[in-house]
Amino acid sequence: MKSVGVVETRFLDLPRPLPLDCGRDLTGVRVAYETYGTLSPDRDNVILVCHALSGDAHAAGVAASPPEEGTREGYAKGLGWWDGMIGPGKAFDTDRYFVVSTNLLGGCRGTTGPSSTDPATGEPYGPDFPVITVADMVRCERAFLDELGIDRLAAVAGGSLGGMQALEWAVRYPTQVDAIVVIASTHALQPQGVAWNAIARESIMRDPDWQGGRYYGTGRSPDAGMGVARMVGHITYLSAPGLAEKFGRRLRDGLNYTITEPEFEVESYLRHQAAAFVRRFDANTYLYLSRALTYFELGPLDDVRARTLLISFSSDWLYPPAASQEIADTLTKLGKSVENHVIDAPYGHDCFLLEEARQTPIVRRFLEGRA
Amino acid sequence: MKSVGVVETRFLDLPRPLPLDCGRDLTGVRVAYETYGTLSPDRDNVILVCHALSGDAHAAGVAASPPEEGTREGYAKGLGWWDGMIGPGKAFDTDRYFVVSTNLLGGCRGTTGPSSTDPATGEPYGPDFPVITVADMVRCERAFLDELGIDRLAAVAGGSLGGMQALEWAVRYPTQVDAIVVIASTHALQPQGVAWNAIARESIMRDPDWQGGRYYGTGRSPDAGMGVARMVGHITYLSAPGLAEKFGRRLRDGLNYTITEPEFEVESYLRHQAAAFVRRFDANTYLYLSRALTYFELGPLDDVRARTLLISFSSDWLYPPAASQEIADTLTKLGKSVENHVIDAPYGHDCFLLEEARQTPIVRRFLEGRA
Repeated sequence: MKSVGVVETRFLDLPRPLPLDCGRDLTGVRVAYETYGTLSPDRDNVILVCHALSGDAHAAGVAASPPEEGTREGYAKGLGWWDGMIGPGKAFDTDRYFVVSTNLLGGCRGTTGPSSTDPATGEPYGPDFPVITVADMVRCERAFLDELGIDRLAAVAGGSLGGMQALEWAVRYPTQVDAIVVIASTHALQPQGVAWNAIARESIMRDPDWQGGRYYGTGRSPDAGMGVARMVGHITYLSAPGLAEKFGRRLRDGLNYTITEPEFEVESYLRHQAAAFVRRFDANTYLYLSRALTYFELGPLDDVRARTLLISFSSDWLYPPAASQEIADTLTKLGKSVENHVIDAPYGHDCFLLEEARQTPIVRRFLEGRA
Repeated sequence: MKSVGVVETRFLDLPRPLPLDCGRDLTGVRVAYETYGTLSPDRDNVILVCHALSGDAHAAGVAASPPEEGTREGYAKGLGWWDGMIGPGKAFDTDRYFVVSTNLLGGCRGTTGPSSTDPATGEPYGPDFPVITVADMVRCERAFLDELGIDRLAAVAGGSLGGMQALEWAVRYPTQVDAIVVIASTHALQPQGVAWNAIARESIMRDPDWQGGRYYGTGRSPDAGMGVARMVGHITYLSAPGLAEKFGRRLRDGLNYTITEPEFEVESYLRHQAAAFVRRFDANTYLYLSRALTYFELGPLDDVRARTLLISFSSDWLYPPAASQEIADTLTKLGKSVENHVIDAPYGHDCFLLEEARQTPIVRRFLEGRA
């Protein structure tokens, strides 16, 4: 497959304060972004791509600057997190569309978030960063696109938290979005998902190195707690059969009667994933995005005009197909245009990053407007 | 329902060292135990009850000494953890059977474990306690019953880790066990269960207050990490529909835009459970029992003579009905006597402690030898 090639992340400063759901205004917001493809003269071929909790603006191509070590396959090579889906001839076809990807509000990869400098104090925000919502992220994306001179979107697309943003776009700016592509997402996290997120946040905040969120510049950060948070995440992103297929009960090196060292392959996998993640991600951003995830409850769909594509995965127990079905049913009852696909695949929530070959024809056909 | 009344936990010191799977011998082992009912003159009416990770010897009746604050309903009143199942006219009928319950090897409620004094040093074992297995627990129970002059068991019964012990009894001492009652258990934890246990242990060991396991007498203990471990446990013991029914997405007090405080009812439930648990349980015991759980792999069933009763619960995703079915199929192929019941109930693994009314007739009929 062809690639969009080498890409450099760029930055744009919003000229006006961003109003937030909590009642505060955030000033001096910077947005990190990348674009792929060419904007049409009519500016009618723009697709906004929204990332999930641990993603960033670098969605496609090869990063111009060498990336930090990461956990995703391809990450170490500098490949964008959705490179299999964005590019010439791919699902989001850059021969036809102008694809825009931003790091979301609250992020730690270039867009203003808790690790950014608070202009009021000259110090990192830390716990003084306002508590943000998915609607705030979407407001930030809207303000950013205003600066690029883009009024309408041919589509907004994303998986997981990215899918929540796509849904929020269709509700909040119904006349400005032609279509949304919502993958492995939901209108509201189920209580079990709320609980997993609470556990992840507890794990970070109970780490003494979190220091109430003011760990920047102290030489210490809550790596131990965030490692556990990431382990919880990884197991919820995979399915039980997927884990059984990938690891079984295989031991690393026989039975060593040890409490402190990993014995099973799945145990050392978890340690490795945790260690890699804490090197590239900010703990406070994790807390804020996790909180936004749990808050999200999609508003009424009556005014939605966007054609909607929903994709979910049979083994995804965190964002189960039933949630997508519920959205589809509501839209259908309201007489809206909606397509719902459940892909039968064993790798749980992670499928949205893995099952690119099976998503591609569905997305391409949908974007071309064919039923 | 009638109760066995007020019960005092007693203690027995094993006269001989206990040989362990790891190759070490454990000397000076003390066993905490309770008994309910009357031993028959022929000593042929003994049922050994085995507890799960967080249980203890106090399985039935009201504790003579006021208990510490606990997390289980009834615990605060001093009721045994399986009081609904053990007593006059109950599933394990003390009008007929002599029920024996011990705190398992490695425990922290009276039986020798990592918080006990190492006779070699006069200090608590801590991380010097040998890594134990389910087979070691069963060897300890066998040695303990020898001291009581009990050779044969009419039954061994338990749920979860307790069910593993019952299975191990039938394999290890086939001529000494007439029947086993194995509830919500498995022949080997699936990889996802291995992973949850690894995450719980990581959470404890990454807490600086764990101090490499030598926290006794320091005034500090890894409460923060064990709290997170317990939260993970609680969510795996419940099912997603059970959580939805119990908590939904209900907020405690509107939306307060807070990272540090619980917003959803399920979040404050988790904090409460964690706080209550760390007050009554030893972190090293948690580590050792969790490790034993993951190691367990039931040996060949060819020599089993015990009649086997398996009960599992439709919504138990940690110890799924499929595991019990696998055991039942293997026993059936070998021509052994086995009964397998799947109870349709929504509360996940916790069902084994909750669904007493539905288990009782199954267990009573099985123990009476009626099909």
